[in-house]
Amino acid sequence: MLDGERSALARLLTLVEERSSEAGQVMRLIQAHAGRAYTIGVTGPPGSGKSTLVDKLTLLIRGQGLTVGIVALDPSSPFSGGAILGDRIRMQSHTLDPGVFIRSLATRGSSGGLARATRDTVRLLDASGRDFCIVETVGVGQVELDIVDIADTVLVVSMPETGDSIQAMKAGILEIADILVVNKADLSGAKRLAACLEEMARENQRDPWWQVPVLMSRASMNVGIDALFGKIADHRRALEASGEFLARRRRRRAKELLEIIETKLKDRLRERATQNGRLSSVFRKVMDAEIDPHSAAVEILNDGSLLRQWLLDANGNT
Amino acid sequence: MLDGERSALARLLTLVEERSSEAGQVMRLIQAHAGRAYTIGVTGPPGSGKSTLVDKLTLLIRGQGLTVGIVALDPSSPFSGGAILGDRIRMQSHTLDPGVFIRSLATRGSSGGLARATRDTVRLLDASGRDFCIVETVGVGQVELDIVDIADTVLVVSMPETGDSIQAMKAGILEIADILVVNKADLSGAKRLAACLEEMARENQRDPWWQVPVLMSRASMNVGIDALFGKIADHRRALEASGEFLARRRRRRAKELLEIIETKLKDRLRERATQNGRLSSVFRKVMDAEIDPHSAAVEILNDGSLLRQWLLDANGNT
Repeated sequence: MLDGERSALARLLTLVEERSSEAGQVMRLIQAHAGRAYTIGVTGPPGSGKSTLVDKLTLLIRGQGLTVGIVALDPSSPFSGGAILGDRIRMQSHTLDPGVFIRSLATRGSSGGLARATRDTVRLLDASGRDFCIVETVGVGQVELDIVDIADTVLVVSMPETGDSIQAMKAGILEIADILVVNKADLSGAKRLAACLEEMARENQRDPWWQVPVLMSRASMNVGIDALFGKIADHRRALEASGEFLARRRRRRAKELLEIIETKLKDRLRERATQNGRLSSVFRKVMDAEIDPHSAAVEILNDGSLLRQWLLDANGNT
Repeated sequence: MLDGERSALARLLTLVEERSSEAGQVMRLIQAHAGRAYTIGVTGPPGSGKSTLVDKLTLLIRGQGLTVGIVALDPSSPFSGGAILGDRIRMQSHTLDPGVFIRSLATRGSSGGLARATRDTVRLLDASGRDFCIVETVGVGQVELDIVDIADTVLVVSMPETGDSIQAMKAGILEIADILVVNKADLSGAKRLAACLEEMARENQRDPWWQVPVLMSRASMNVGIDALFGKIADHRRALEASGEFLARRRRRRAKELLEIIETKLKDRLRERATQNGRLSSVFRKVMDAEIDPHSAAVEILNDGSLLRQWLLDANGNT
């Protein structure tokens, strides 16, 4: 993969997505090669034209001779709309370009699982030598909030004529946006939406070193993409100059360590719950409603030797 | 609360939502009083009329002299639309009725946290003597899939003229639906949608003892609500007769025990990560990128004494 072999990258990505037993080792081995790629997150409501925007940004970056990895997230909601599949098919226009690598991630699992798979996928693309990684999320639920843990610059894309959504967006959008994009700017109400977002951004400045800008675009006509890429470069410079770029990476590494350990311990709990005689009997009592789950949990958590048998082996080893 | 005092119920619900230290004890104490209420889950895409349907179902149940607790989930997506607040306000038509208790749950946290809060809220409403609990979820992301872990009967509400969504719905909808409802049945395309859903349901029968029916309704006109409530009663009888009602409750209790322990251990990990000297030094190395998170995790997980210090105290106690 480090030699740029696409099929090797694809195989490693699959290992990691499937959480194969070798995944941890893969992530350890590639770690030293990661950290160069700049990661752009793109989120927003369905229909706002995120995929088209990602498409055009990719063409622009490729035009500068730089390489791109794209991770398209699909939280697989039964209600997330039929457009997703179409987007993926359209994005295949890049598949003949060896400088673009696209990976779709769909999971029915927890948002935590999706966040982990996304982070590892981005890191693999990064280690494979991509200059930019773009993570596109369907803007529903928790997933789009996790993007701040992965992306260096987060674009939040909206469009006019979704009046209702502006109010709702207020709630969380400024917590995650580094750049606000009003796409489909030819539709009526675009200027009003942009003015409204600008006021929100001015009133809720998050970082002292960055004022979130509002840009207009018509991605389908390739309008506004140059200016957007310029702003991304501005944000990158401001992020690095403020020291926040390094600070974020430090925090993310600590968080990642905690999450890996949590996941591993959770797996251990589940695997061993039925293997231990004393534990099985507690579980049976809970299932038979002889004891309620909260009382049983207190009993187990206060029983050091039982917990040790569960998480460590009898000698206190793992 | 057991005496039917509303303000006591409200206070206990708040304790549990805020995950106060007394929450576990509250859940233990009320456990013996819970298990009577029948829980109906209602999910579907935004705009399908879920809240109106819940409203009318509630009126019907109240008309039979039975009491209702409603839990309205709001996953707080920045993009989930502005209609939610309006729904909540409309539902306040019930607030003068002491036989109806409505609770909105909004959380920016993980879907796991929301699922836990929902389960505990339902259990409190149950213990307070409600005959029915209705859990309404905005149909986006992971949350609506968790509803099968809480509800006895799951209604999936859709509406015509969202052609795109049918395809997408195929993916997950039949895994969770016990009854499919085509609401806004006066809109064109309602019969076509119902026929399509019926075919899907026939081809993908999940439970040998239950064929998922498709019902038409116009909740805003109170049309189809009687038939719907009749089908809910049919499903309840089939569920109980098949033995699956008890089997599900058994599985849920075991799952709940695992989740309580996982959460508690996770809290312990986070609290103590900075308190232990050896651990702090591992975290510092990870933040300084002297060691990658995956390697550090392996190191910690293979070090029984370090893990014991983290999760248990030095003597192996908790």
